[in-house]
Amino acid sequence: MAPSPPAPARRADAQRNIDAILDAAVESFARRPDTTLAEIAKAAGVGRVTLYGHFASRADLVDAAMARVLEHGDAVLEPLELDGDPAEALERLIATSWQLIHQSRSLLVAAQAELSSARIRDLHAGPAARAERLLARGQSEGVFRSDLPTSWLVATLHNVLHGAGDEINAGRLKPEDAARTVSLTILAAFAAR
Amino acid sequence: MAPSPPAPARRADAQRNIDAILDAAVESFARRPDTTLAEIAKAAGVGRVTLYGHFASRADLVDAAMARVLEHGDAVLEPLELDGDPAEALERLIATSWQLIHQSRSLLVAAQAELSSARIRDLHAGPAARAERLLARGQSEGVFRSDLPTSWLVATLHNVLHGAGDEINAGRLKPEDAARTVSLTILAAFAAR
Repeated sequence: MAPSPPAPARRADAQRNIDAILDAAVESFARRPDTTLAEIAKAAGVGRVTLYGHFASRADLVDAAMARVLEHGDAVLEPLELDGDPAEALERLIATSWQLIHQSRSLLVAAQAELSSARIRDLHAGPAARAERLLARGQSEGVFRSDLPTSWLVATLHNVLHGAGDEINAGRLKPEDAARTVSLTILAAFAAR
Repeated sequence: MAPSPPAPARRADAQRNIDAILDAAVESFARRPDTTLAEIAKAAGVGRVTLYGHFASRADLVDAAMARVLEHGDAVLEPLELDGDPAEALERLIATSWQLIHQSRSLLVAAQAELSSARIRDLHAGPAARAERLLARGQSEGVFRSDLPTSWLVATLHNVLHGAGDEINAGRLKPEDAARTVSLTILAAFAAR
């Protein structure tokens, strides 16, 4: 029997495998929400036993892939200029958020099948906090309505943005119209009277 | 071996069992979205083999329970007065729809776990058609905006109504505030400029 490599090397191997599996998962789910774990293991160049050793179920892997995509998304949103006029800033936030959602639309279908909507909201804590800061500022400056709680505005923004993905999947909305459609809806809904 | 009862009697038995299972499913899911099929079989007074004979999977049973609840809901919405001022009619539709959604909130959590969002939308075809007629009339009368397609308004109404359920589940919205919160959001979003 060959001697086991020392522990730090084994940990580095495990981390490389996890990274390869998550990269493959994000890419495979982006193509097809019903990708199997066997296909993801193959794309990652690892055995199924290795994959199941790191991710005990399909839900675990979808959860980790969503977390990775949202971490990437948060990094894309980070440099976005959200100062200045709150309504214009909200339009910029919607346009960029929509691009991110659109790229991950297929992964989101997998997530909706495997995770609760509460868990999906929890995974969005980063983008939700960003939206909440902007919406609260707009409320305090009198640009956005204050008769509804900020948390409700955050939830409505999330639901309307994701609803656009469902409408595209159903063939009722063109992808190129989505950001404008969401903006027109949200800005009217949130405007102070 | 006892002789089998004649076919019509067997069919009547089967229909009684299906009805008992669906009644038990609707009631059990209304209490807990994670109710097991074994518990539902017990509440229906049938064996697990009988239940699995009619509903091959948890998803099948959740789908049938949702269909039954939505059929009931459509009957509740049927007598609703949707003529007259479209904005007032929409407020009435929202208030009644919200009551129905709130009663089935726990079943909806089970449905979101078992069914695709496209399937959940399909199951809502009856209520969606009702909303669509009212929204299209309001658009043609110049009360609701016409710069967005009617299908988008229907989808937004669906998503915001169901989003209220998620916000209640998360403890961020009080049930008694939900219908008013949804109405304020939707009427502002849909108003003609």
